[in-house]
Amino acid sequence: MSGNSFGSVFRVTTFGESHGAALGCVIDGCPAGVKIDRDFIQAALNRRRPGAWGEQGLNASVTARKEADEVEILSGLFEGRSTGTPISLLIRNTSQHSKDYSNIAASYRPGHADFTYDAKYGFRDYRGGGRSSGRETAARVAAGAVAACLTSLSGIKVTAYTIEAAGIKAEKRDLSQIEKNPLRAPDGDSALKMNEAIEKLRSEGDSAGGIIECLVEGCPAGLGEPVFDKLDALLAHAMLSIGAVKGIEFGDGFEAARSTGSTNNDAMHAENGAPVFDTNHAGGILGGISNGNKIIFRVAVKPVPSIFKPQNTVRHEGDSLVSSQLQIQGRHDVCLCPRIVPVIEAMAQLVLADLLLQNRSSKVDF
Amino acid sequence: MSGNSFGSVFRVTTFGESHGAALGCVIDGCPAGVKIDRDFIQAALNRRRPGAWGEQGLNASVTARKEADEVEILSGLFEGRSTGTPISLLIRNTSQHSKDYSNIAASYRPGHADFTYDAKYGFRDYRGGGRSSGRETAARVAAGAVAACLTSLSGIKVTAYTIEAAGIKAEKRDLSQIEKNPLRAPDGDSALKMNEAIEKLRSEGDSAGGIIECLVEGCPAGLGEPVFDKLDALLAHAMLSIGAVKGIEFGDGFEAARSTGSTNNDAMHAENGAPVFDTNHAGGILGGISNGNKIIFRVAVKPVPSIFKPQNTVRHEGDSLVSSQLQIQGRHDVCLCPRIVPVIEAMAQLVLADLLLQNRSSKVDF
Amino acid sequence: MSGNSFGSVFRVTTFGESHGAALGCVIDGCPAGVKIDRDFIQAALNRRRPGAWGEQGLNASVTARKEADEVEILSGLFEGRSTGTPISLLIRNTSQHSKDYSNIAASYRPGHADFTYDAKYGFRDYRGGGRSSGRETAARVAAGAVAACLTSLSGIKVTAYTIEAAGIKAEKRDLSQIEKNPLRAPDGDSALKMNEAIEKLRSEGDSAGGIIECLVEGCPAGLGEPVFDKLDALLAHAMLSIGAVKGIEFGDGFEAARSTGSTNNDAMHAENGAPVFDTNHAGGILGGISNGNKIIFRVAVKPVPSIFKPQNTVRHEGDSLVSSQLQIQGRHDVCLCPRIVPVIEAMAQLVLADLLLQNRSSKVDF
Amino acid sequence: MSGNSFGSVFRVTTFGESHGAALGCVIDGCPAGVKIDRDFIQAALNRRRPGAWGEQGLNASVTARKEADEVEILSGLFEGRSTGTPISLLIRNTSQHSKDYSNIAASYRPGHADFTYDAKYGFRDYRGGGRSSGRETAARVAAGAVAACLTSLSGIKVTAYTIEAAGIKAEKRDLSQIEKNPLRAPDGDSALKMNEAIEKLRSEGDSAGGIIECLVEGCPAGLGEPVFDKLDALLAHAMLSIGAVKGIEFGDGFEAARSTGSTNNDAMHAENGAPVFDTNHAGGILGGISNGNKIIFRVAVKPVPSIFKPQNTVRHEGDSLVSSQLQIQGRHDVCLCPRIVPVIEAMAQLVLADLLLQNRSSKVDF
Repeated sequence: MSGNSFGSVFRVTTFGESHGAALGCVIDGCPAGVKIDRDFIQAALNRRRPGAWGEQGLNASVTARKEADEVEILSGLFEGRSTGTPISLLIRNTSQHSKDYSNIAASYRPGHADFTYDAKYGFRDYRGGGRSSGRETAARVAAGAVAACLTSLSGIKVTAYTIEAAGIKAEKRDLSQIEKNPLRAPDGDSALKMNEAIEKLRSEGDSAGGIIECLVEGCPAGLGEPVFDKLDALLAHAMLSIGAVKGIEFGDGFEAARSTGSTNNDAMHAENGAPVFDTNHAGGILGGISNGNKIIFRVAVKPVPSIFKPQNTVRHEGDSLVSSQLQIQGRHDVCLCPRIVPVIEAMAQLVLADLLLQNRSSKVDF
Repeated sequence: MSGNSFGSVFRVTTFGESHGAALGCVIDGCPAGVKIDRDFIQAALNRRRPGAWGEQGLNASVTARKEADEVEILSGLFEGRSTGTPISLLIRNTSQHSKDYSNIAASYRPGHADFTYDAKYGFRDYRGGGRSSGRETAARVAAGAVAACLTSLSGIKVTAYTIEAAGIKAEKRDLSQIEKNPLRAPDGDSALKMNEAIEKLRSEGDSAGGIIECLVEGCPAGLGEPVFDKLDALLAHAMLSIGAVKGIEFGDGFEAARSTGSTNNDAMHAENGAPVFDTNHAGGILGGISNGNKIIFRVAVKPVPSIFKPQNTVRHEGDSLVSSQLQIQGRHDVCLCPRIVPVIEAMAQLVLADLLLQNRSSKVDF
Repeated sequence: MSGNSFGSVFRVTTFGESHGAALGCVIDGCPAGVKIDRDFIQAALNRRRPGAWGEQGLNASVTARKEADEVEILSGLFEGRSTGTPISLLIRNTSQHSKDYSNIAASYRPGHADFTYDAKYGFRDYRGGGRSSGRETAARVAAGAVAACLTSLSGIKVTAYTIEAAGIKAEKRDLSQIEKNPLRAPDGDSALKMNEAIEKLRSEGDSAGGIIECLVEGCPAGLGEPVFDKLDALLAHAMLSIGAVKGIEFGDGFEAARSTGSTNNDAMHAENGAPVFDTNHAGGILGGISNGNKIIFRVAVKPVPSIFKPQNTVRHEGDSLVSSQLQIQGRHDVCLCPRIVPVIEAMAQLVLADLLLQNRSSKVDF
Repeated sequence: MSGNSFGSVFRVTTFGESHGAALGCVIDGCPAGVKIDRDFIQAALNRRRPGAWGEQGLNASVTARKEADEVEILSGLFEGRSTGTPISLLIRNTSQHSKDYSNIAASYRPGHADFTYDAKYGFRDYRGGGRSSGRETAARVAAGAVAACLTSLSGIKVTAYTIEAAGIKAEKRDLSQIEKNPLRAPDGDSALKMNEAIEKLRSEGDSAGGIIECLVEGCPAGLGEPVFDKLDALLAHAMLSIGAVKGIEFGDGFEAARSTGSTNNDAMHAENGAPVFDTNHAGGILGGISNGNKIIFRVAVKPVPSIFKPQNTVRHEGDSLVSSQLQIQGRHDVCLCPRIVPVIEAMAQLVLADLLLQNRSSKVDF
């Protein structure tokens, strides 16, 4: 209910608007005894920051605006470990200015949630998009870092990366290159081409989308709660809850729809008494439960809606609504891919942490 | 928690295995006063039945096995209307036979959930797939029909249809043709080609996948609960909870990832004081909230895993697990698309009914 | 939400009206591997049946009407054990007759939920009280029996008994006597006096209330989820959800309010390296978490509202509501205590089963 | 799940330990458009503060320690009204000092949750009781103030007051006197006697309990969600979730157990076409749903466990647990009643706000 909590046992509630006092989250259900390090959470937040790559003069995709995004741990830890009580994390908004929002306040920006928030709630906090701003995902990244402290105890490792941006595809999957290029692509050469394409769009006042792949290694078999809370169902829920995401596919995904059973089924053989899958068309999930294979999924990220071309829209004039044109100003990302990578990892971690704990009740072992 | 309930306010809990005594569901949270007709629910179930199209000698995609799927309303209605108390629906399993499952009991069928259920629960009801069987979706279809009784009061209409099967795409969207061909395609001519391709795979002991599109008309603006229970997030959760579904995309979906902001943004103009969208790249959802446009999404359906070619797998021999081959027998669908269409509609109805009710708390109007 | 589910991990959803087709429940979240016996569930239901004591000509408190209350297990078991999938239990209503309810349909019976159901839902199923009937608790008793199969694995034993009825108090706690007298009192002599007092009220067309005590033995320390889902908070929720219950107290309860800290605190000493409590004023719960002591609580049960004296009330006449008198007919319990005993045990079992499973996530032990 | 959230639609999650950085809460599900005033929240917090009455030299019951308890609104408001997004409230801990807790760290204080937290979580934040401290209720009071902003729109008014303390009963119910005496009793003369009795216990190093009554006026008929989330069930859950509360009763409560149906039933008559109850033995709730009458309940508050007499307990010595004596130091309340009054009001407000919103889905009115 009410949409700002995610998870059942490991449950995160986030709060905060882009230009309010602060963002943050409360994590309820983290077991006691997990080592949690503020620096680890801060490092995760630093990866999500605008301009995280700007230092190197290379990154056309994201805005150069800097925000500190300093995280404060308000509760739930004692002597470096979780106590079983709620963990609350706070991130102050420092760079919001009392600028003039009257333009946006009266108009609905195309591709943004302005109109739908008004339709739903009757009015909205229009400063910088309010709650619908991508800035909200900072709280998710912080929470995901805590989840990672838990899932890593089970050997789980989550890695996301850009495999396509502005129409340019990555041609290989070299995970060691991800953090070495501004697109977070697993292919530095392709990243350069992506960056060029994005730079061109920026110069035209336009923007780009892309595709992110996410790889989960070390996930034990058995995670996922049929029939509705299947692992893939929860991951899909998690990913589509990210503002710019328009689609998700697991394993062969939409290509599986064109395959045949004899090709798409992953055959098995036995090794040392354990089943081994010969292929991984399924992307590591069978019947909604992890099968011990690598989990692989891809999400589609739409182009940034904030562009610098004039756009047709509507605006309030007194009591009436009239057709108008809008020219967006300020600094905005041109392609969200590199900044959405840590958000996708965080949401995957939240799902996995929750299912790890839920799975503790799958069998009697009193 | 625990995976067998879906929804927050309009909440459905399903139960039942393919070869147990019965399937069914309990719907909690349906408001009092909704007219609900047993015949309407039965008609929905009839659309999902195996061999629903077999009469016409045309449908290569589904098995000819017949099951009555008679629904009984156990509670929650009085004089033809919901009373606000839980609505329980029961569907007896009538065609299960005490056949020999020893083959399946010891082996893990490739592409099925056999291995993962064992990994999760320690043992499983192996008869016909147990809870992981597609038969479980009958309860969803019954529940979805009840949801439709509620959503139709708001003018909502949900229609799903096959736009691709066995690699053949529908070339048009003529909704009047959907129920006139065995694939439930919106294009009778393409349906014939799909059927031929499926028939060929059947003769080879193989199977096919496909893509279903779902269209929601009449949905008011304002449905969806940011930030986690966005309309698209809940629809993705709902759809990926269906066994054979491997992906979902909204509006332009994965193509949006290759578009630019200036193209992908849906511009607006004012008509009679209301905003009208010039395009619908977003698929009717902005910021996770319905915008009043048609909602459009597509799901990828994998090929049926039960094929009649020998497959490599593992089997239990005494206490050890060994490599083996498995030859599946019996009757099975070759392509799930036509039978999954009503399941997709049902799951969409459940999401919409729930969000309609959740939206009643969006604003003060005491 | 929506009120007909109870529990978080071990979660029960009940359905059914007193004069509909059936009552029943779905239990989601029972771990796989629990031995569950239909006869055990049936025995629990038999204890709750009306007239369970009538055979012995002794029981003034309950109606002599008989209902079979045969339970059918629809799903979730395989070869005598839970599979981890939902367990659905069905109890057909067999004795409902198409009798004339027009009297009740138009009037609000004092002490019953007739008026409030109308106020809430706009109309109601007036046949025998519909969903508000005590008959609804049959589903709880069945579910509680399943919970008991789980909690007994941890050594938990729950026993409730009548310690006061019609103003007569039990003077001892001899648990071996509970099932040997019609009041389910732990004191056969007092039970005789209670029975006489109840018989007198019955002859006057009146009814009685009473107090039930519940004792939980063998509960491990650590159950309860601060701060809101404390063990006592959940037990209070559970007990007050039973129609006739008007109060609950734990340990010394309301008497503790008159005590002092030096008396009320339970001191401890160490025995074999474990803490032992010298007293049990707290009733086995500290800070909302079980402390390993016996858990003790008492609930107040109001007099049966269905009496055979004329009562002032209101009735619908056409479109208006007028003052009137109502004379209730049929057979009704005179004192609910003996029949509510198994309901209280069942609800306690549901709370404990749920908290046992929730507690599996309290610490890291990967 | 996980215990730190309360409510379904109007849902509060609290966090914070007594000696951590801060306490606070996130309220999700507050409809947009509610006027919320920081000063109103602050005033509620001020009523709960230690020593709120100390200025007048009269209040023996509570400690004289002062804490600022300044609340900061972090999110969810815009231009003085709720936006429909989560409302987060923060209260910094200012008076915690790095004092020596080694005494408490090794010992289990009788009557406190020290032992059970260790039993559950494996270790605990022992500084000032950590999460189990009564200080945690500050966040509830802040959240309750927000709830009151919502419920007051429906005309609901909640008032709690001390009707018994240290064995002295209030002899009248004059609500105008509540805030005029240090016990928050509705009877100033009795309050003086209570205060004397408490002062005597303080001088002896002992402590007192008491009974609080809560009155809800203006509650519309129809609130409560049968069968498990009855109004009284949720209120009982809410009240027993407060640390020191050991019992609750509604209307005539435990006395009803000794009454008869003919006395206890509340008869009705019609006035202007509406039903009017002649009495209110039920305390305003029938079948778990509010009936439009005043809602009345009472809770038992145990004596403060922190006393200044030496107590027998156990302490850790190296790896072993040994019997020992403990002498608690510092300042502590002697009787919680006056400070728990605002907590009880707050919890009642949370229940009512939630049920008001849940009730929006009770009927179709599209």
